[in-house]
Amino acid sequence: MNILVLNCGSSSIKYQVLDFKGETEFSLLAKGLVERVGSDNATITHKVPSREDVFRELPIHDHSKGISVVLEMLLDPEKGVLKSLEDIDAVGHRVAHGGEYFSSAALVNEDTIAKIEKCCALAPLHNPASLLGIRAAAELMPQIPQVTVFDTSFHQTIPDYAYMYALPYEYYEKYGVRRYGFHGTSHNFVAGKACDALGWNIKDKKIITCHLGNGSSITAIKGGKSIDTSMGFTPLEGVTMGTRCGNIDPSVVTFIMEQEHLNPYEMDSVMNKKSGLLGLSGISADNRDVEGAAAKGDKRAELTHLKRCYDIKKYIGAYAAVLNGVDLIIMTGGIGENARNVRREVLSGLEYLGLELDLYRNDHVDGDNWIISTENSRVKAMVVCTNEELVIARDTMELVSRKKK
Amino acid sequence: MNILVLNCGSSSIKYQVLDFKGETEFSLLAKGLVERVGSDNATITHKVPSREDVFRELPIHDHSKGISVVLEMLLDPEKGVLKSLEDIDAVGHRVAHGGEYFSSAALVNEDTIAKIEKCCALAPLHNPASLLGIRAAAELMPQIPQVTVFDTSFHQTIPDYAYMYALPYEYYEKYGVRRYGFHGTSHNFVAGKACDALGWNIKDKKIITCHLGNGSSITAIKGGKSIDTSMGFTPLEGVTMGTRCGNIDPSVVTFIMEQEHLNPYEMDSVMNKKSGLLGLSGISADNRDVEGAAAKGDKRAELTHLKRCYDIKKYIGAYAAVLNGVDLIIMTGGIGENARNVRREVLSGLEYLGLELDLYRNDHVDGDNWIISTENSRVKAMVVCTNEELVIARDTMELVSRKKK
Repeated sequence: MNILVLNCGSSSIKYQVLDFKGETEFSLLAKGLVERVGSDNATITHKVPSREDVFRELPIHDHSKGISVVLEMLLDPEKGVLKSLEDIDAVGHRVAHGGEYFSSAALVNEDTIAKIEKCCALAPLHNPASLLGIRAAAELMPQIPQVTVFDTSFHQTIPDYAYMYALPYEYYEKYGVRRYGFHGTSHNFVAGKACDALGWNIKDKKIITCHLGNGSSITAIKGGKSIDTSMGFTPLEGVTMGTRCGNIDPSVVTFIMEQEHLNPYEMDSVMNKKSGLLGLSGISADNRDVEGAAAKGDKRAELTHLKRCYDIKKYIGAYAAVLNGVDLIIMTGGIGENARNVRREVLSGLEYLGLELDLYRNDHVDGDNWIISTENSRVKAMVVCTNEELVIARDTMELVSRKKK
Repeated sequence: MNILVLNCGSSSIKYQVLDFKGETEFSLLAKGLVERVGSDNATITHKVPSREDVFRELPIHDHSKGISVVLEMLLDPEKGVLKSLEDIDAVGHRVAHGGEYFSSAALVNEDTIAKIEKCCALAPLHNPASLLGIRAAAELMPQIPQVTVFDTSFHQTIPDYAYMYALPYEYYEKYGVRRYGFHGTSHNFVAGKACDALGWNIKDKKIITCHLGNGSSITAIKGGKSIDTSMGFTPLEGVTMGTRCGNIDPSVVTFIMEQEHLNPYEMDSVMNKKSGLLGLSGISADNRDVEGAAAKGDKRAELTHLKRCYDIKKYIGAYAAVLNGVDLIIMTGGIGENARNVRREVLSGLEYLGLELDLYRNDHVDGDNWIISTENSRVKAMVVCTNEELVIARDTMELVSRKKK
């Protein structure tokens, strides 16, 4: 069963084709990226395992053309991996925001599209792009079932006292201002995968997942369900990220706007694009650069590293309280999987929780589902590789198969 | 030794006279409140233990006149408690914001006043009023030493990775944007008092203090020093309060400003005066009203109660992680001392920490330094009565005595 996964941004289209033999057995047929959609010099980078990468520059004026180019590439007799469009069994679309409408993946139909449209106000940069992709794909492949998978849906199980803000209630009623949370597919995926690897039943377990990348979020999972997460109304809330500030005193927002004569749009841009590792260190949004500078003795880089780790540690503590203890802490995402210094700083000094970090194993991660706590540690800590496209493909396959039955 | 404590707001003056026999033995001679300073119908309410309260309405056009009225009342042959101004050994002033200048109380002199002036931008509502009071008192009692005690100074031991926000660094350099924390005198006082009551040396202990009133903050104390606190650049950050929202996604601030066409000043007012218990419940800023409505089945009141308790629980968890465990959790302030439902909700389900709440003792608090954890509980939980005026008086006495030596 071949699933095409599409992840459409405002000027980009990421794609993957996965071939499933069963639910867990699959192979990647091809993946790629279209960039600068909307211009005369757009590009496509197409990768097929054990073949040479293909790179082309060409005019792509809209998402419809972009997806046509992807399909042509996939069907190309020489560079492609499929014989005909009919070899695609279903298309899975990543959608950033499902609001309160979607607590799981959904088949694309008029109702689904209308609801995603309603969520555009909540994700003005992301949802309109997803809609362009969904409409184009539906037009180009009218016979193939399309599924939408949401970044927010895993978090729809969060209870109201954890998702409401203590603002005038009317803002929730009028505008849907509440915590939604993001990275849901990743948190869900790594928690399930780790439990499988440990032979655990996730229903009995308390898990804290740390998805640490350019965007970062922490989630508390009880019995397989998200009960709280650090990102909120937008992906800005929570811990320090590459260019995002995470939590600050809300009065700082209005104070800086007045001092610097910024309008809401400009201030939002400061908090999302000029803050985080980049703003505090003054060096880079990339964790490797910041760690490198800290290692060379740069004081602000050292402060930035410690601050980002401190934020994560506080969330682990807060969620341990909410869960009344924890069985497993998972590190995933580009930084969670690769930055041993971040993992060490975050997971050291948590002996009160019953966690004992194995410093050697933390420094020598070698493979997926890699345990970094000591054998005697009551709480397990693990590095798990995330794969959001795989989750989207799986959810798509599952929904399409269910429909067929 | 008689200490006059003054707490000047923009249109009010609170005062107390405490007579110290030693550091811990003292008696309250008189206390009172001047309201509507700046008007023709200002009032003074004057209370002396075991005498009838005095209430007067009169024109008080500025803080100088207000303090004169207080001194006249204190020296009044019939209503007063002092024979002459010389019976006042020192005056202690409460000052909201000491910025990064003050890590302890300070004698009033030109330098102190200049530094408090510099902090006016950080506390535009509070510091100017304090300065009016300090100047008026210094003029009226030029021979009597004056001391300033700061809400922020106890938190000056917080490390940089806990007080910095991940915003562009220049905001810290240009405007002093960082976490300062407030309620310092209260957190410091209850932690010390509880350790005395338990016969503990505070230097060896990990303590989390919850000062819960109309304004609320949580502090992590290690070895007697504040290492983190929930309030930040202003007293808005942290947990849900009477009318303050506490933590929200910073993007919500700019989103609401755009939707509702609010300027920074108006938005700040929404977050400080129309949010919190009041905004979320739609009922009241007073915890008793919200709990009452929740008990009668009001769903939003119930949600509001749970949300406020959940916030506090998350901070306790976060600070337990930062401290790597905790020995003592203290509840203080109007709500901490009186709202058993809040204490129960916050402190239940923390067995993972080693805390076992004694439900009966929690429901029947009878006295100060009242333990509400079970005898077998590894972590102690305690209700402790705060007394910020007493701390100000003590700090004042100590500084003046030291100067004399």
